[in-house]
Amino acid sequence: MIVIQSRDNPLVKRVHALSTSGRERRKQGLTVLDGAHLVAAALDAGVGVCQLVVSESGLASEEHQALIARLDRLCPQATLPDKLFAHVSGLDTPSGLLALMATPALGAPVATVAQSVVVLDGVQDAGNLGTLLRTAAAAGIQHAWLTEGCAQAWSPRVLRAGMGAHFLMKVYERVDAVSLLADFPGPVMATVLGARSQSLYAVDLAAPTAWLFGAEGRGLSPALLARATCHVHIPMPGAIESLNVAAAAAICLFEQVRQQG
Amino acid sequence: MIVIQSRDNPLVKRVHALSTSGRERRKQGLTVLDGAHLVAAALDAGVGVCQLVVSESGLASEEHQALIARLDRLCPQATLPDKLFAHVSGLDTPSGLLALMATPALGAPVATVAQSVVVLDGVQDAGNLGTLLRTAAAAGIQHAWLTEGCAQAWSPRVLRAGMGAHFLMKVYERVDAVSLLADFPGPVMATVLGARSQSLYAVDLAAPTAWLFGAEGRGLSPALLARATCHVHIPMPGAIESLNVAAAAAICLFEQVRQQG
Repeated sequence: MIVIQSRDNPLVKRVHALSTSGRERRKQGLTVLDGAHLVAAALDAGVGVCQLVVSESGLASEEHQALIARLDRLCPQATLPDKLFAHVSGLDTPSGLLALMATPALGAPVATVAQSVVVLDGVQDAGNLGTLLRTAAAAGIQHAWLTEGCAQAWSPRVLRAGMGAHFLMKVYERVDAVSLLADFPGPVMATVLGARSQSLYAVDLAAPTAWLFGAEGRGLSPALLARATCHVHIPMPGAIESLNVAAAAAICLFEQVRQQG
Repeated sequence: MIVIQSRDNPLVKRVHALSTSGRERRKQGLTVLDGAHLVAAALDAGVGVCQLVVSESGLASEEHQALIARLDRLCPQATLPDKLFAHVSGLDTPSGLLALMATPALGAPVATVAQSVVVLDGVQDAGNLGTLLRTAAAAGIQHAWLTEGCAQAWSPRVLRAGMGAHFLMKVYERVDAVSLLADFPGPVMATVLGARSQSLYAVDLAAPTAWLFGAEGRGLSPALLARATCHVHIPMPGAIESLNVAAAAAICLFEQVRQQG
């Protein structure tokens, strides 16, 4: 494995740029998977990686050694001193192993998919977005439509919170959900506050559903909300104003799991 | 309202210390509420604040002016230039208004409470901890027992994610939950992975329950897990390994809401 010592090395510059710049990721069509769990999840899902980078102290980990062996002769590998590794990783707590992968080119989403879809509108918080994808994947949902205002789905922080969800789903970005939903064949469900809507627990969720979740604070855009064919609320015994969007989504998506189970 | 310009001002030093140091917060028995929403939630819940601080540009907000008027003659108020406000606020995106409040001195929790309790074990991520409290409060749960290894409940980041939950619940910290649970009269529920447990949806959740949630990755401590009288899992159709702890808690607590509703 090659050992790199300099910040001026082209690979170091490239990984740093991909870790820290959404524009670079889009331009190069690549992203950074930080951590053995994410890299293993990608490989398990049949997603290839094109460069492995390990920190010097990261070499001592058995989990990392297993990945190094698994990727032997499949992609180039490099070791960096810990300080240089921390420099190229965009994350606060670098894991000691990362890989580059090509972000999937999905084409346009299809409105008439016969499965449930999560539609995420303007979710800018990376942790919330990743958690939403992770929860949706756990609920067996395979399609996510992200509107223009969402955080970049393939950023390292969203990937980390997603814990491998990205490899199990088709995550479409910059989707014109308002147009697409006009042709969605099933119910389009919006969670709203207040009592002028049905209780989540009183709604029949047997059919494939498009679930709309908006940014915290602002909620769904009016144009998207107008596409909803059903407004539901989550009954809340406590005096709190609202739920975190990822918590609300977990409750909704797993109520559907329960009903379909 | 007094205007403060200097970093050496005693109030500036004090707020900065409280914003950034858990040790200071414990020593002084005070914390920082950052943002109009949190301050209003405290006041609405009958919790007093002992100092209001507003940034210069924050003075322009109607929401802030309403709080300034509401607290007129009830507590001292000060204005800081925006840069100095950003310095004293521990958060990445300072809101422009903050208040100091005394953290409640709750005494010891009582094991024989006839209500549901959330027991949080080693939850160190501030966002997860705050979201867990917010979700529990929304589900009408009034008691949280936090073990030694949790993040500080009254830190500005946990408070922000809690969105007012702290004022609706009794949040006990550094709790010896293993001892306390020996006397808990109802079921003690642990969520576990794998199929050697009951499905959440097959369990009768009518009785007040102690819900155990552990840190991501590590899970519950063995001693705490041994106190569980019932192991449940959340059925997951997708191939993802696990759920975020706050998402799992939302699903569990609102399944109980559904059953009790």
